[in-house]
Amino acid sequence: MKNNIRSVSLKQTKCDDKFWSPYQKLVVDTVIPYQQKILNDEIPGAEKSHAIANFRIAAGMEQGEFYGMVFQDSDVAKWLEAVAYSLWVHPDPELEKYADEVIDIVAKAQQEDGYLDTYFTIKEPEHRWKNLLEGHELYCMGHMMEAACGYYEVTGKKKILEVAEKMTDCIASVFDEEHYGIPGHEEVEVGLMRLYEVTGDEKYSRLASYFIESRGKRKDFFHEEKDNRDFDIFNMDPDYLEYNQSHAPVREQTSAEGHAVRAVYLYRAMANLAAATQDESLKQACERLMDSILQKKMYLTGAIGSSGEWEAFSKDYDLPPDRAYAETCAQIGLVFFAKAMLDMEPKGKYADVMERCIYNSTISGMQLDGRHFFYVNPLETNPGLSGEVFGMKHVLPERPGWYACACCPPNLARMILSIGKYCWNESEDTIYAHLMIGQRAELAHADIAVESGYPWKGEARYTLTPKTEEPFALAIHVPGYVSADTLKITVNGEAAEYQMKDGYAYILRKWNEGDVAEMNFPMEIRRMYGTVRCIDTAGCVGLMRGPIVYCIEGVDNGPQLQALILPRESSISEHWETEGVLAGTVTLSMEGLREEDSDELYSTAAPEKKPVKIRAVPYYIWGNRGLGQMRVWIRE
Amino acid sequence: MKNNIRSVSLKQTKCDDKFWSPYQKLVVDTVIPYQQKILNDEIPGAEKSHAIANFRIAAGMEQGEFYGMVFQDSDVAKWLEAVAYSLWVHPDPELEKYADEVIDIVAKAQQEDGYLDTYFTIKEPEHRWKNLLEGHELYCMGHMMEAACGYYEVTGKKKILEVAEKMTDCIASVFDEEHYGIPGHEEVEVGLMRLYEVTGDEKYSRLASYFIESRGKRKDFFHEEKDNRDFDIFNMDPDYLEYNQSHAPVREQTSAEGHAVRAVYLYRAMANLAAATQDESLKQACERLMDSILQKKMYLTGAIGSSGEWEAFSKDYDLPPDRAYAETCAQIGLVFFAKAMLDMEPKGKYADVMERCIYNSTISGMQLDGRHFFYVNPLETNPGLSGEVFGMKHVLPERPGWYACACCPPNLARMILSIGKYCWNESEDTIYAHLMIGQRAELAHADIAVESGYPWKGEARYTLTPKTEEPFALAIHVPGYVSADTLKITVNGEAAEYQMKDGYAYILRKWNEGDVAEMNFPMEIRRMYGTVRCIDTAGCVGLMRGPIVYCIEGVDNGPQLQALILPRESSISEHWETEGVLAGTVTLSMEGLREEDSDELYSTAAPEKKPVKIRAVPYYIWGNRGLGQMRVWIRE
Repeated sequence: MKNNIRSVSLKQTKCDDKFWSPYQKLVVDTVIPYQQKILNDEIPGAEKSHAIANFRIAAGMEQGEFYGMVFQDSDVAKWLEAVAYSLWVHPDPELEKYADEVIDIVAKAQQEDGYLDTYFTIKEPEHRWKNLLEGHELYCMGHMMEAACGYYEVTGKKKILEVAEKMTDCIASVFDEEHYGIPGHEEVEVGLMRLYEVTGDEKYSRLASYFIESRGKRKDFFHEEKDNRDFDIFNMDPDYLEYNQSHAPVREQTSAEGHAVRAVYLYRAMANLAAATQDESLKQACERLMDSILQKKMYLTGAIGSSGEWEAFSKDYDLPPDRAYAETCAQIGLVFFAKAMLDMEPKGKYADVMERCIYNSTISGMQLDGRHFFYVNPLETNPGLSGEVFGMKHVLPERPGWYACACCPPNLARMILSIGKYCWNESEDTIYAHLMIGQRAELAHADIAVESGYPWKGEARYTLTPKTEEPFALAIHVPGYVSADTLKITVNGEAAEYQMKDGYAYILRKWNEGDVAEMNFPMEIRRMYGTVRCIDTAGCVGLMRGPIVYCIEGVDNGPQLQALILPRESSISEHWETEGVLAGTVTLSMEGLREEDSDELYSTAAPEKKPVKIRAVPYYIWGNRGLGQMRVWIRE
Repeated sequence: MKNNIRSVSLKQTKCDDKFWSPYQKLVVDTVIPYQQKILNDEIPGAEKSHAIANFRIAAGMEQGEFYGMVFQDSDVAKWLEAVAYSLWVHPDPELEKYADEVIDIVAKAQQEDGYLDTYFTIKEPEHRWKNLLEGHELYCMGHMMEAACGYYEVTGKKKILEVAEKMTDCIASVFDEEHYGIPGHEEVEVGLMRLYEVTGDEKYSRLASYFIESRGKRKDFFHEEKDNRDFDIFNMDPDYLEYNQSHAPVREQTSAEGHAVRAVYLYRAMANLAAATQDESLKQACERLMDSILQKKMYLTGAIGSSGEWEAFSKDYDLPPDRAYAETCAQIGLVFFAKAMLDMEPKGKYADVMERCIYNSTISGMQLDGRHFFYVNPLETNPGLSGEVFGMKHVLPERPGWYACACCPPNLARMILSIGKYCWNESEDTIYAHLMIGQRAELAHADIAVESGYPWKGEARYTLTPKTEEPFALAIHVPGYVSADTLKITVNGEAAEYQMKDGYAYILRKWNEGDVAEMNFPMEIRRMYGTVRCIDTAGCVGLMRGPIVYCIEGVDNGPQLQALILPRESSISEHWETEGVLAGTVTLSMEGLREEDSDELYSTAAPEKKPVKIRAVPYYIWGNRGLGQMRVWIRE
């Protein structure tokens, strides 16, 4: 493997996009301030967080008890990371000042030896590192590393980075070949690879490598650990090894298993490490795991982790729409994993899955008010059953406010604010443009202004200011659903010469100041079918247009969405919405049939069908117009 | 309510039926001896029962500890009841001798004051009656009452009846208006009503009435009980009142709720009591609860209790085929409840639901070898998912051997052996023939020999030997699916005059020795559709022929049954099978379509359809030809 591909830092991009800029504004204006208040317990009626207070107590700045989940610290870390990106998107001296204060508290909460975890520091200092299965110390520290890198990148301030560095020294002093240990929830591997990315110091990638390669090497570890400790936190089963991907050495894993968030965090770190170390066999393991997800374990919306138990991957093709777990964080993690794969090799399928997730099952996690969030992103909800009956208790038909376990909202905030960095890679001779997101990017070969009508229009326009006289390629990702014969690629208005390879259109030329490359393709509505191996999609059709998955909702279509049928021959028309919640989206309407209701539980009379108009709306926006049924898969 | 309807005892009937006699033989030859060995721990490899040993220990006949579930005694009681009926079906002096020995042990295990429960006697005598929520004392005693009545009826021996009578004195000495108590699992109410039926002594119906009427009257009872005791058995939630139907006084209940077996046992006893006391309002409560089941909570197979959690009824129309609980015992209880309703009022819908259950979701609980049993009777199984993934862990795709919680096998044994008594009621002027089961019946108005081709042929022939000169009606239940214009009823070969009322054809006349009444109707294959309110049946068709529900199995139809489609216009042909496991049944074959498999998880190409032959077999016989998929609901 020869890998000359470089990732791009957030500061090389400035988002200016009709779709994403409003989301970024929502995060900046609402989500981050709201989360700040939550972390400080300033929202009346919301579940108590106490996360900042925990740090203050650990710092000796106030008296009190630890409160919250064992991983409560990570809420602060993820918020801090989101704040970092927020300060880039929208500089805000007051917010930065407050973030600096929080960092001061965090730094004070750090122990002499670099240890940083308020739960164990306040509550059980004697149990430090004694319950890696459940303790989440390395998880929280990993998030703090990510926050540190983000904050340092954006502000140039080193204090939190120094905290992170000191923390890793502490970790490195505890774990080594002689002193085996792996975290029950992966994340520190990601944090360490971020530290490596930002500092270039190989001690971080080496420590990441230690944790990655150790996983699955000692299958009895968590069991022994449990035998050797006299306390539990969650009373997790130490023998459910798939849960935390410790059932086999990572290079031998071929199927995505266990807790979906844990899995994709691990896979991302594996890919980061493979890229950093040019490790072909590790890269292949990543490819196998990604293929396992893409080919057998992913919902149409890009959601993963279909099992309602353990927030986990289920068996291949077991993708129940109404019992999905499909945690927002898992999809965000899949975006990260896909980008890490692109950092090694530009393949359209990775950019495609990023698209699938960012436009569907990640942002579906957030109400348009920025104050209500889904943890679980089902593809079907039936009020009265969802959230209530066996098998569906975890599936809520409406987004609640804040969770005690508040991992998803700040995760979403950081993804949305840093979306620009997922758009690019560069190599010695090529700029890879993965996503059609309007922005200004300052890359090595050129500055590029992107204008895009995506996801509603199949058009992106790249205006280049090259920084080199040498020819280089602009390789534009062509979404996988675009057929070659409808694709138009021009440079300065003329049909361009380009080569298609692995889903990218390579336009290789000497670029001049102001050259404009443009990609256009028609946005056709696509009827999507699941493989017959998937029992849950049998007989149904899903609708997509561009990267957007559609759903039908009760508010538009009346009760009993299961009674609606979309005949294969029905034509579907699209509408640019200008009013209400749906303003700025394309909705679909079509002639369908509705089976009529009957009092008889079973009858020899097939339900009569009446023609009806069916309206479908973008999936990501579902549940913003009151409580009702929702379905992605429509009977055909 | 004026109720002159009498029930018929088992000893008035002698089954001689092509369908049921082989089942009775299987129970007599295999199930009962097998269960006898199980109860005595004589089957190597089977889960330990220890049920007889518990009685011996409680009787002071041997030393040892109690072993098994808290309700282990009921296994002996149900076996004893099955033995009683077995002795009627097939007299067996050796078996009777052994049963007498067991009864001797049971009698010795009974305490001075009449108390009879080996768990509490051996293990926790100080906790007697202190945990009615979980203790199952009254449940076990109720079953012993049923066994006693059955054994006394068949053999005329009084010993076990005296045990039961002494037991009820004990119960009556503990519970009264001043000393409130209701059992967490209903059954004693049934046992007491059986004692009333057999002895005519109203003290039993009064005690049954006490338990029935007390239920739901003190909603804090189980909670208080838990507060006042310092031991738990299952750690049940005392506030889940619906679970044991104590959420409201029984007369106020309108919806079937909670644990399905508990529910139908209660409803049966309510109906028995309403019949005995001519209580119109209690009868109406029973009617409402039955309608709740029939109209909103029952599978096509007659199965009930669809929730995989708590073995309970779910919300209305929540009838998932692949996550069904549908416990064999629940369906048996529904047969009992339906018969109890017929004992009050002959309505076709009650006979119809008896048919639906006895020919489908009860006997599906037993392998044709009489040695493997289902607790759970799903309408769809998918090996690899069933029994393995979240929401389906309770659904086994193959019948295992014996369960530690072995309630279903002996319950099925007693239903099959006593099937004759479910066929009849009599009133002053009418004989009601509910089921088309070949037999000789000695009724008050006449002796009747029934010959029947049911369930495969729509024919039943009643040859009468009247015992009265007075005219009386033979009211033959016409299955609800038979259309009036295809129904033929003759007497001595001539078209008979009859009146249809509530699903019964009343032939009123003076009957002469040797008169033959005959009912004939064509057995048409019926396509069944669920109401669109039921999400799980949408787009699918079920097949029935007569009372038999059909299913498709992998062994006949290859993999991925979800890929099979039965077009509405396909004609279906039937086959009388003569070989193998299916011999003696009618199977169905039809032209269908199979969607082709694809590696792509999602595709814009709808799966191609190829014509295939589909074979459907009777549901009750599924899983007798190896492990494979099974589906009742076929895509249409």
